[in-house]
Amino acid sequence: MNHAKNSSILLDKAIEELSQLPGIGKQTALRLALHLLKKGEKTLTKFGQTFVDMGANIQKCKVCQNISDTEVCSICSDDERDGTTICVVENIRDVLSIENTHQFSGKYHVLGGTISPMDGIGPNDLEIESLLDRLTEEPIKEIILALSTTMEGDTTNFYLYKKIQPYDVKLSVLARGVSIGDELYYTDSITLGKSIVNRSPFTPSL
Amino acid sequence: MNHAKNSSILLDKAIEELSQLPGIGKQTALRLALHLLKKGEKTLTKFGQTFVDMGANIQKCKVCQNISDTEVCSICSDDERDGTTICVVENIRDVLSIENTHQFSGKYHVLGGTISPMDGIGPNDLEIESLLDRLTEEPIKEIILALSTTMEGDTTNFYLYKKIQPYDVKLSVLARGVSIGDELYYTDSITLGKSIVNRSPFTPSL
Repeated sequence: MNHAKNSSILLDKAIEELSQLPGIGKQTALRLALHLLKKGEKTLTKFGQTFVDMGANIQKCKVCQNISDTEVCSICSDDERDGTTICVVENIRDVLSIENTHQFSGKYHVLGGTISPMDGIGPNDLEIESLLDRLTEEPIKEIILALSTTMEGDTTNFYLYKKIQPYDVKLSVLARGVSIGDELYYTDSITLGKSIVNRSPFTPSL
Repeated sequence: MNHAKNSSILLDKAIEELSQLPGIGKQTALRLALHLLKKGEKTLTKFGQTFVDMGANIQKCKVCQNISDTEVCSICSDDERDGTTICVVENIRDVLSIENTHQFSGKYHVLGGTISPMDGIGPNDLEIESLLDRLTEEPIKEIILALSTTMEGDTTNFYLYKKIQPYDVKLSVLARGVSIGDELYYTDSITLGKSIVNRSPFTPSL
């Protein structure tokens, strides 16, 4: 849609900024900008300042490379978490996903991606050296590889396996199998095959 | 979805701000915040500052009540526009819609809503007095009522008609009829009825 000149350049700018976000077009951006405008100056200032502050203060945790408000993130500096188990993930979002399960109380290491020659991403582009450094500096007993089940994820898993082998740590990966709540009929055959090969003892529970 | 404590309060705040926008949930807000985060500090600062500036500087045009960056908006202060024709609309969005048609070169007056006793909105809650003031102060020859075709819009039209009658101005409303490109079969009977009653002379064109 070809937008006419607006009576407010400030509104135009807000629409432009919002419409750069993924999945938000000009029309939606206008709707969102007018929503904020309607709420008044206080809301607009709070909204905007949040992103200015985020830009100024957010950083990578120097230990795990997760985003952090401080030099060392709140997970790394939390003494109640198990510092002997490190879960290796691709990105910040995966940390959030695993945290949401409330099933992991160890620490993390964010690689920043997976090895992908097609995209020109090699091991040196990832936070692998910093992971190996942690193996010598921290009392790590187990590394859990929680990468995507893609070709790139598998390649990265193998690369990490080779690099980690010399160290005295247990290396594990996330269990693969039929999703909970899924019907067998809808499970893809590779996953189903893996879940038969890697079947686990039946433990009666509620 | 129950979000776990995040490693960054700044990210949490950004998610909270984004998820207050209409149609944006926590998951989408997270995706948008991470998108901005990935673009880096400069993008975040520009994004945020836009809304801070908007909050600080945007105001209502003192003539037409449209939003403006200055005391008098760019439409009202544009001498190339026809100051004798005023189009009365409900809100800012309607100004944009009409501007997008490129068919109107007069000026506007933004009422701020329509008379709606159900919602407790009376004539005094709308910018009606300021419209009448303009009728004495400006060389206005025609007022176009471009309100919604709802009960509230019709009520407001009638109220404005009564108020404007004493002045020597032409009063018109938007033409109602079959939408261009619409098939008759899909046109609602009230619109179709009106379009027969208000039929216009056939003018051959390309």
